Amino acid sequence: MQALILAGGSGTRFWPLSRRQRPKQLLALGDGGSLLRQTVERVRPAVEWGGVWISTTRELADIVARDLPEVPRERILAEPASRNTAPAIGWCLTMMPPELRDDVVAVLPADHRIGDGARFLEALGVAERAAREGGRIVTLGVRPAHPETGYGYLAFGEVLEASSGLRRVVRFIEKPDFETAERLVAGGDHLWNAGIFVFRGSRLLAELERLAPAIGDGLRRIAEDPEEGDVLYSALPSQSIDHAVMEKLEDLATVPLDCGWSDLGSWDALAAALPSDDAGNASRGDVLALDSAGCLFWAEQGQIAALGLQDLVVVRTGDAVLVAPRSRSQEVRRIVEALRERGRDDLL
Amino acid sequence: MQALILAGGSGTRFWPLSRRQRPKQLLALGDGGSLLRQTVERVRPAVEWGGVWISTTRELADIVARDLPEVPRERILAEPASRNTAPAIGWCLTMMPPELRDDVVAVLPADHRIGDGARFLEALGVAERAAREGGRIVTLGVRPAHPETGYGYLAFGEVLEASSGLRRVVRFIEKPDFETAERLVAGGDHLWNAGIFVFRGSRLLAELERLAPAIGDGLRRIAEDPEEGDVLYSALPSQSIDHAVMEKLEDLATVPLDCGWSDLGSWDALAAALPSDDAGNASRGDVLALDSAGCLFWAEQGQIAALGLQDLVVVRTGDAVLVAPRSRSQEVRRIVEALRERGRDDLL
Repeated sequence: MQALILAGGSGTRFWPLSRRQRPKQLLALGDGGSLLRQTVERVRPAVEWGGVWISTTRELADIVARDLPEVPRERILAEPASRNTAPAIGWCLTMMPPELRDDVVAVLPADHRIGDGARFLEALGVAERAAREGGRIVTLGVRPAHPETGYGYLAFGEVLEASSGLRRVVRFIEKPDFETAERLVAGGDHLWNAGIFVFRGSRLLAELERLAPAIGDGLRRIAEDPEEGDVLYSALPSQSIDHAVMEKLEDLATVPLDCGWSDLGSWDALAAALPSDDAGNASRGDVLALDSAGCLFWAEQGQIAALGLQDLVVVRTGDAVLVAPRSRSQEVRRIVEALRERGRDDLL
Repeated sequence: MQALILAGGSGTRFWPLSRRQRPKQLLALGDGGSLLRQTVERVRPAVEWGGVWISTTRELADIVARDLPEVPRERILAEPASRNTAPAIGWCLTMMPPELRDDVVAVLPADHRIGDGARFLEALGVAERAAREGGRIVTLGVRPAHPETGYGYLAFGEVLEASSGLRRVVRFIEKPDFETAERLVAGGDHLWNAGIFVFRGSRLLAELERLAPAIGDGLRRIAEDPEEGDVLYSALPSQSIDHAVMEKLEDLATVPLDCGWSDLGSWDALAAALPSDDAGNASRGDVLALDSAGCLFWAEQGQIAALGLQDLVVVRTGDAVLVAPRSRSQEVRRIVEALRERGRDDLL
């Protein structure tokens, strides 16, 4: 099996830890190395080093290569421009040698957390078999742990394979409001859309041509005229693989998965995923907290001393410190925007 | 007139900005240089450079000398041990040449804020005249601006001099509870004890011998046998000048003063003394605050980015950051104690 890791994100939600040259997927937010490295190591029992492909940006390609020296440099694919996941995945598939393009490819975001790697691999194996033997496109959907409003959901229908528990995906639901999320979770027939897909590369390319011809045709022309690649790629419509293909498929299958997954979409989500002390504080680095509860303290450099704090996130780097309520950590991007407006490139 | 500046404090309330080698009086908490330097410059219209004396510790003497190169090194007096203000003041007076010891001496804490320097000098002039011509011991008492529970109070009685408004001090009141403080302020006949005293040095030494003979006699023996100075000084009782002398005087006089005084006893007190923006935030250094109100942001090194904070103090140095509610900034010493227990000398 081939693994195509999507590592082109430029997220700002983990500022001040995340920077342009060090976006979320390159941060060591979990227990091991970078999230990217953890993602690769998680699939390694099912994928040879030679089967690892990284989709990233030109700005990040060298940094990714340093983070993953085991991956042959030519398999770190720097997209000519940012055009969302449908062009990115399609373009990487066209870059593969034809015989590998026909192999099963697992597409995995580089910046998520998976707590239970064994269960994940088990589900990945089911998906691989369904893709290899049944020609299916399969998504790993995560059994929802709570009525999360920050995720998209998948509604699943009938069992497609009794032996594997493979189900048909009948509908994609955008991020719901809280009441809807509660209903979806209570119903038991919805999964979180984790953005993990498994398919034969050749089938996905065929579906791109059928369901998103502007992208499919564009990729074909890039393959025929590589010198015009940058211009042609930049002209592709910016679409997610969900919108371009997955939502339109009538036979998308899913393997429900219960593996402690989180998209780590904010400091708050990270705090929820990290181990915490008796007072509910999650701490990294040199932290001294008195009379504080429910906080995330992250000291990359220097010390954080906290007294009498409740439900805050405090993140200290060598050049900045962020302090905000955990409940508002989605708004950290406003800080980044304000820094950009002020021309503070030194902090971006 | 001579000015004796008390600069031996080792306060921890401004951690992480204050350290053993850089206590509060050496911090630039106001608009100019260090609080010590501001204190000296404030009295300079009334005192020559040659009349400036600094009482400090051996640990701080060189640092003080660098901060005040204009002061002759031999007038920076490093007390042999920490024995509170009565021994410190008495010892400095005995170190002065006899003719200066008989001059008027103004004793001034090095780490307070005075907003209106002109009014302060005016009151100092009144006190000097009363000390020089009337042989009085005079304290500058501050008209209370609010019912502060963190200060001691002076009750004043009859007018001693109609021309100057000099009043007799009839009682010292320790830090009161809030109800008492409200009553004292409402009554109009109490002042904050600012620890500023003006007297002829020879009179103060005579009062020490009369009212605090253990200190007075000890100082006399040190003068007679300087080689035993360290041992003798360390054996002196640790007493404040208030307890040892001022509270026992029957003719202590005061000049009521209205000059924007604060003892800057905590981050909260400093925040109240600093100018603030429309949202009530006081900021120093590189600060970006969104949706925040009533906070003190102090960035000595690097940036502070704040989002959605209320009434917090955030202080960032090169090696630490403190985050606490302003209302709990008196408890910062608990952080310092905890660091000491953990052997974190690097942060003390």
